Amino acid sequence: MTADSSDSEWSTSEERIMEATHRALLRDGYAQLSISRIASELDQSKASLYYHYDSKEDLLLSFLEYVTDRLESNIYTSNDESPSQELEQFIEMLLPLQLDDTESQLRAAMVELRSQAVMDEKFRKQFTEIDDRIVDHLERIIDRGIDEGEFRNVDSTRVAEHIFATFSGVMYNRATTNRENAPAAVRVALSSYLNKDLMKR
Amino acid sequence: MTADSSDSEWSTSEERIMEATHRALLRDGYAQLSISRIASELDQSKASLYYHYDSKEDLLLSFLEYVTDRLESNIYTSNDESPSQELEQFIEMLLPLQLDDTESQLRAAMVELRSQAVMDEKFRKQFTEIDDRIVDHLERIIDRGIDEGEFRNVDSTRVAEHIFATFSGVMYNRATTNRENAPAAVRVALSSYLNKDLMKR
Repeated sequence: MTADSSDSEWSTSEERIMEATHRALLRDGYAQLSISRIASELDQSKASLYYHYDSKEDLLLSFLEYVTDRLESNIYTSNDESPSQELEQFIEMLLPLQLDDTESQLRAAMVELRSQAVMDEKFRKQFTEIDDRIVDHLERIIDRGIDEGEFRNVDSTRVAEHIFATFSGVMYNRATTNRENAPAAVRVALSSYLNKDLMKR
Repeated sequence: MTADSSDSEWSTSEERIMEATHRALLRDGYAQLSISRIASELDQSKASLYYHYDSKEDLLLSFLEYVTDRLESNIYTSNDESPSQELEQFIEMLLPLQLDDTESQLRAAMVELRSQAVMDEKFRKQFTEIDDRIVDHLERIIDRGIDEGEFRNVDSTRVAEHIFATFSGVMYNRATTNRENAPAAVRVALSSYLNKDLMKR
């Protein structure tokens, strides 16, 4: 796992392009996304975007790095909570019971974008890194809970991978089916599992 | 949930087209799939395929129905096992520790195909039905286990949804990342969860 992108600094113009990509993804979805739409979102010429990025693929890979960095800064903030509170908050962030329209559309666009990773090794690498970071974070919370005596002495890697697979499945199925009751059922089952198997009683 | 496609009968020529679609997906992946490739796989003219299907989309939707029917006939065979054996076998089918190349490629192609469901309601409906059937089957096994006293009196819907989300996440992440150790970790965590929370001891 590399730490490159957490160290990367985003110039103001890069950030503006990334935010415009985000808005264009939300408005038009992945299939419609193009350098010209992002340029017109920014009131800039296509040429000005090609100055920063060689291709749409290049821009999208940068966008994934940007999302990863933002994720990182969102999750590494809280340290006052107990491990169980931190875990609960992180799970609520990953697997919210309700998604507003914007969040739903962004997750749906990420599912479309992620399908590129089936065939394209560059996208695959970027999603591997995103997943590694989320699982690492889950693992750190669980290890802290074990150290502080709040959690049982579980295999933190396995529990973290299990929580992460559950989250991924819910996100994926939410974006690709109309099974509207499934996310809540999974969330309740996951909480019950963690209460029984992870928390000391 | 509809039961239409389980009753559907496939003509010999439709079955040949579906098998050719399967082979073309395995060989070339979803992005390269076209009516002409399937036609040449069959040594037939494109026109002969358009006789059965209006468009590539129409053919792919049929292919999904075909996969659903095949899934159905694969899973409704075993009745001699105990509920825990049946559950274990079904989980091994969904979430095998090892995938051979063919099975890997088919699952990867399904992930690509499924990304159509983010924006296309017809694909969404078909994947909703596929998921409903798998979850229903899991639920029936769990209910039988409760009735026969092998399983605890759990909420079978929630446990089925949790197992299914876990499976979906592993399949999705396997196809889109290089995190090769994740599936085995999840599988062990899932078994341990089921042993503790589902099985009576």
